[in-house]
Amino acid sequence: MMIIMRTDATKEQVSRVVDRVENFGLTAHISSGEERTVIGAVGESRPLLMDQFLHLPGVDRVVPISRPFKLASREFRPQNSKFRLDGFEIGGKGIVMIAGPCSVENREQILSAAVAVKNAGAHALRGGVFKPRTSPYSFQGLREEGLELLEEARAATGLPVVTEVMSKEQIPIMLPIVDVLQVGARNMQNFDLLHAVGESQHPVLLKRGMMASVDELLMAAEYVLSHGNQRVILCERGIRTFETSTRNTTDINAIPVLKSLTHLPVILDPSHGTGHWEYVTAVARAGIAAGADGLIVEVHPNPSEALSDGGQSLKPDRFVKLMKEIDAIAAAVGRSIEPMLSE
Amino acid sequence: MMIIMRTDATKEQVSRVVDRVENFGLTAHISSGEERTVIGAVGESRPLLMDQFLHLPGVDRVVPISRPFKLASREFRPQNSKFRLDGFEIGGKGIVMIAGPCSVENREQILSAAVAVKNAGAHALRGGVFKPRTSPYSFQGLREEGLELLEEARAATGLPVVTEVMSKEQIPIMLPIVDVLQVGARNMQNFDLLHAVGESQHPVLLKRGMMASVDELLMAAEYVLSHGNQRVILCERGIRTFETSTRNTTDINAIPVLKSLTHLPVILDPSHGTGHWEYVTAVARAGIAAGADGLIVEVHPNPSEALSDGGQSLKPDRFVKLMKEIDAIAAAVGRSIEPMLSE
Amino acid sequence: MMIIMRTDATKEQVSRVVDRVENFGLTAHISSGEERTVIGAVGESRPLLMDQFLHLPGVDRVVPISRPFKLASREFRPQNSKFRLDGFEIGGKGIVMIAGPCSVENREQILSAAVAVKNAGAHALRGGVFKPRTSPYSFQGLREEGLELLEEARAATGLPVVTEVMSKEQIPIMLPIVDVLQVGARNMQNFDLLHAVGESQHPVLLKRGMMASVDELLMAAEYVLSHGNQRVILCERGIRTFETSTRNTTDINAIPVLKSLTHLPVILDPSHGTGHWEYVTAVARAGIAAGADGLIVEVHPNPSEALSDGGQSLKPDRFVKLMKEIDAIAAAVGRSIEPMLSE
Amino acid sequence: MMIIMRTDATKEQVSRVVDRVENFGLTAHISSGEERTVIGAVGESRPLLMDQFLHLPGVDRVVPISRPFKLASREFRPQNSKFRLDGFEIGGKGIVMIAGPCSVENREQILSAAVAVKNAGAHALRGGVFKPRTSPYSFQGLREEGLELLEEARAATGLPVVTEVMSKEQIPIMLPIVDVLQVGARNMQNFDLLHAVGESQHPVLLKRGMMASVDELLMAAEYVLSHGNQRVILCERGIRTFETSTRNTTDINAIPVLKSLTHLPVILDPSHGTGHWEYVTAVARAGIAAGADGLIVEVHPNPSEALSDGGQSLKPDRFVKLMKEIDAIAAAVGRSIEPMLSE
Repeated sequence: MMIIMRTDATKEQVSRVVDRVENFGLTAHISSGEERTVIGAVGESRPLLMDQFLHLPGVDRVVPISRPFKLASREFRPQNSKFRLDGFEIGGKGIVMIAGPCSVENREQILSAAVAVKNAGAHALRGGVFKPRTSPYSFQGLREEGLELLEEARAATGLPVVTEVMSKEQIPIMLPIVDVLQVGARNMQNFDLLHAVGESQHPVLLKRGMMASVDELLMAAEYVLSHGNQRVILCERGIRTFETSTRNTTDINAIPVLKSLTHLPVILDPSHGTGHWEYVTAVARAGIAAGADGLIVEVHPNPSEALSDGGQSLKPDRFVKLMKEIDAIAAAVGRSIEPMLSE
Repeated sequence: MMIIMRTDATKEQVSRVVDRVENFGLTAHISSGEERTVIGAVGESRPLLMDQFLHLPGVDRVVPISRPFKLASREFRPQNSKFRLDGFEIGGKGIVMIAGPCSVENREQILSAAVAVKNAGAHALRGGVFKPRTSPYSFQGLREEGLELLEEARAATGLPVVTEVMSKEQIPIMLPIVDVLQVGARNMQNFDLLHAVGESQHPVLLKRGMMASVDELLMAAEYVLSHGNQRVILCERGIRTFETSTRNTTDINAIPVLKSLTHLPVILDPSHGTGHWEYVTAVARAGIAAGADGLIVEVHPNPSEALSDGGQSLKPDRFVKLMKEIDAIAAAVGRSIEPMLSE
Repeated sequence: MMIIMRTDATKEQVSRVVDRVENFGLTAHISSGEERTVIGAVGESRPLLMDQFLHLPGVDRVVPISRPFKLASREFRPQNSKFRLDGFEIGGKGIVMIAGPCSVENREQILSAAVAVKNAGAHALRGGVFKPRTSPYSFQGLREEGLELLEEARAATGLPVVTEVMSKEQIPIMLPIVDVLQVGARNMQNFDLLHAVGESQHPVLLKRGMMASVDELLMAAEYVLSHGNQRVILCERGIRTFETSTRNTTDINAIPVLKSLTHLPVILDPSHGTGHWEYVTAVARAGIAAGADGLIVEVHPNPSEALSDGGQSLKPDRFVKLMKEIDAIAAAVGRSIEPMLSE
Repeated sequence: MMIIMRTDATKEQVSRVVDRVENFGLTAHISSGEERTVIGAVGESRPLLMDQFLHLPGVDRVVPISRPFKLASREFRPQNSKFRLDGFEIGGKGIVMIAGPCSVENREQILSAAVAVKNAGAHALRGGVFKPRTSPYSFQGLREEGLELLEEARAATGLPVVTEVMSKEQIPIMLPIVDVLQVGARNMQNFDLLHAVGESQHPVLLKRGMMASVDELLMAAEYVLSHGNQRVILCERGIRTFETSTRNTTDINAIPVLKSLTHLPVILDPSHGTGHWEYVTAVARAGIAAGADGLIVEVHPNPSEALSDGGQSLKPDRFVKLMKEIDAIAAAVGRSIEPMLSE
């Protein structure tokens, strides 16, 4: 870290900072400019330490030098991480498509959605059974019953299943059925849950919090990785800004930024990113054009009857059209939709 | 809700919306302007329903009419909620002061902090034992051992204790020791945890998420209230914005907005709201001037040795000064610092 | 507009609102629900009126129904606006590329840049001569001398020229030389300037303010259009958010949102949108994939010597590569780079 | 500035950066840690230079050390700047109150408002005659006619007048009448205007842009100060965030931050800061409690008839109440409302 002194800092104040740097076992490098002195503290970096200089007299600011994440960084692992899920690989050249309804609502709905996305070429089925809802009066999900329906949809179509886990007690009942544990945006900094999905050694889809920085997303991934669980997929799903014409603001910059900072696969959720089905396909194309490794898209057999997020869900025929357009964009960036082994 | 049709909507499209409104057991009121038609749907309001009109042909937007929260609203309960904690009342005319270190670090530190804030006139002791940290490599709290130290500090000073609960399994071990369960900003929409603290029937301090709107904070409170647990204290602690000169942006507007929308007590956390000890006292004064019912302030016997948040912690002598200044501001708004029964 | 009454509004308060609606020559439609009454005010809409109901007793909120812009809206003009500039058309099927340095710095630099972007296939040359700089101590542009250099670059390459106008006195000296007057992000709500470029009847490139909503961008365009000047190009260039890993956050959603709300051509500036040359090409591809009609890209013959924005400028060879990638994306969305008449 | 190299930077890349630092006449200090090398560039700092290192191979980031403003900084001038306006002083111990309508609408309105705020104890009259309006169809101000009415109000009450200037041509006609030239939030980075008000040597009230950082506000002030015009008042008026329950988010933190960084007087505009008259008084109190040197408040004799911003204007009797409450808060922070010489 660099400790930037005030312009009016005294020699004694500089000495005291240098002493403290050395007390932590670090080496102090002093740069004295005309205006002010800067002290570089070199050695093992711990974010914790930064706070411990802010109160010292004469200190103006402390600037970190190292990135706070390690296992997630491309400096740690230069090549892309890729890994197999049931029937396909993520993180390689192939584009992966995850699709399905926001919530599992009933047997007919989830089976119909699963067959529709399977026929359109999706690789995995999404569907929430434990639902984080802003209001306690909204539909909270079918819970265990929904898991059984997902199991049935999985058996009927062969599609692996992605579903959100909201607390660690849900993990044991999910493991036999669910292929990928999704950590939702609202739980991206539920560190207790991050530890638990890390310990599960199960694949994890980690959604960026709506007000989380790219660095914080990578720190959340670091929680999972620190348990030796390396199968982590990152998902940009829109951030919260002042703009209200869409539900969230898709941070398209985050795609190349993440691809540059980390080796983990990165996908985009254009459904939450926009919140309006009319804009989903355009932003889905943008995501693949920007370098995303896949998409997660809300598809519902009958969006206007959906119990949640109907306004951002695509009808199956629109999803077929989206798949065709993604196919063209993938080719334009020298990639293709990942083939499925079962085909 | 009001369903606003597109300017080019056909009569058939209007009819279809009206039919659907009536299918839900609501009454449709049609306003046809020169430009477009607006359909009011009157009856029991459920937020769920709004989504179910967005996909209908000819619909432009759907606008909610009712507030999404009920039990938390001042329309539901016009008078201020006030309730006793150990030795003092919150939500009445008296200003309540909660103070202590970010984290419990060791026996000497927490006892020293507890005595210092007690002597300065604080009503309750704060101190984290389970810590939500952005990095898995940061100090994660003393956990059970920290609870024991809080119990000791409580016994030594008589101060009731406020500490953060991060998951529902922690609740049973906290109940015998902790007077107020704090739900932290990162868990404000951890709905599983909100249900659990609601069920506990224990007083709850609910911090606003850094990305949460005022309405979402009130919906989170609604989760707790819906279990019949009415002892909920709301806490503004700064939101995330583009400004980087402070760690967060204290939303001072939220104080009068919350006091107008809800009957629940509202306090301010100027330590997290600013992130710099130099600004804490000024913003603390502002909070009481704006109508807050209390403050929660980080105080550490030796901030530059703190294991977390040292940069925003006050030294005990500065906290003494803050108390004096708050006393003057409280008088200026016709209130006073809440007297403690034990005195 | 809809006037939403408080739940405790009296009949007299409702009557007073209705009277006022009718005093403004509007028709009042009353919807009385169980909880509250909503009054629709139907007739010619003026945004001004909304404020005039907020102070009436018993009023909770006022919700607009109409969009605040007219001439810019697709409802006013359903088909895309397209118009010719020197040698090419914008707003049609062809993708238009504008490129060049942030600032005109000297004769050699601008001529070298102009030739490079011309050879790579760009349609127009960008280059600032009056520079809005955050600091009074930064390079403020070559001003009139820079205009002469732009004229020379235009003559040498045949490329039409786009440059930023910062105040209305600059317009007369620009008109003989400049093909498109750019209104910069910081001036998007400089209404005096908007009136002046409207009156000029010259083509305008209007950049979205970093703090402006999509609606406000369209209202700014409305200022220009209201003078009968219909040759307006809108430009998304990133908004300000909490994220700091890039200079701005490219609002990719705004591309399909604008294409849906307005008939005006929409282009993207991935250089300002990201602020880092490494990310420019990926976000450029995303913009075209999302439906933008063109791009404006910073290209400098020697970015590390640039007097401004070197960090986000591409070297000429990277711009050649970008053009090839945009060509492929354009084909994938059924479009192509606009042919130039001179070829 | 500090140039932070990538972890994989080669020795040659480090040498090249050091050479360039020295080419600019700066001294390079090299700190080589285990992970990476950091190069401090010491000497005269120019923000421009930072960009010129970003493109060099092996460079990860460049971090500024110096603040970008000088004349505005407290390091440049440690004591508070205070200066006289007609009849009162700003920047000293006394709290200054500026009040009046958003727009001058007609003779009766502005005279009535001027008398009302004068009687309540205000020091200066505000009132817009050139109005920046989001829509070209909204009331744009009475312009020259409005200036004459302001002159009349000034003569009738003796109150100095504050009004917004939107372009530099307006300055000459304002100087004989207007005591303080206000630069509005939308023009905070209209650098052409900043130069012009600087050159005028007339007192300036500079409002923070709704998406401008504190540093950018100080840079805008630097434009004015660099012309030797030292009578600059800074005004916090709310920033744009994701929160929609108020029109803007009052950045109360900015008050102590500005008072710490600059010697210039700082006032708060709680009317724009909240956008709702119900919250104006609470936030006004907060501003003075946080250390502001004054307030600018919208007061209208009949807000529900106002041509602009009626929803955030106070009625005269509420402003009388606000003055009393501010009096009490001022006393609580050891200050008082500035006495007027005419009394």
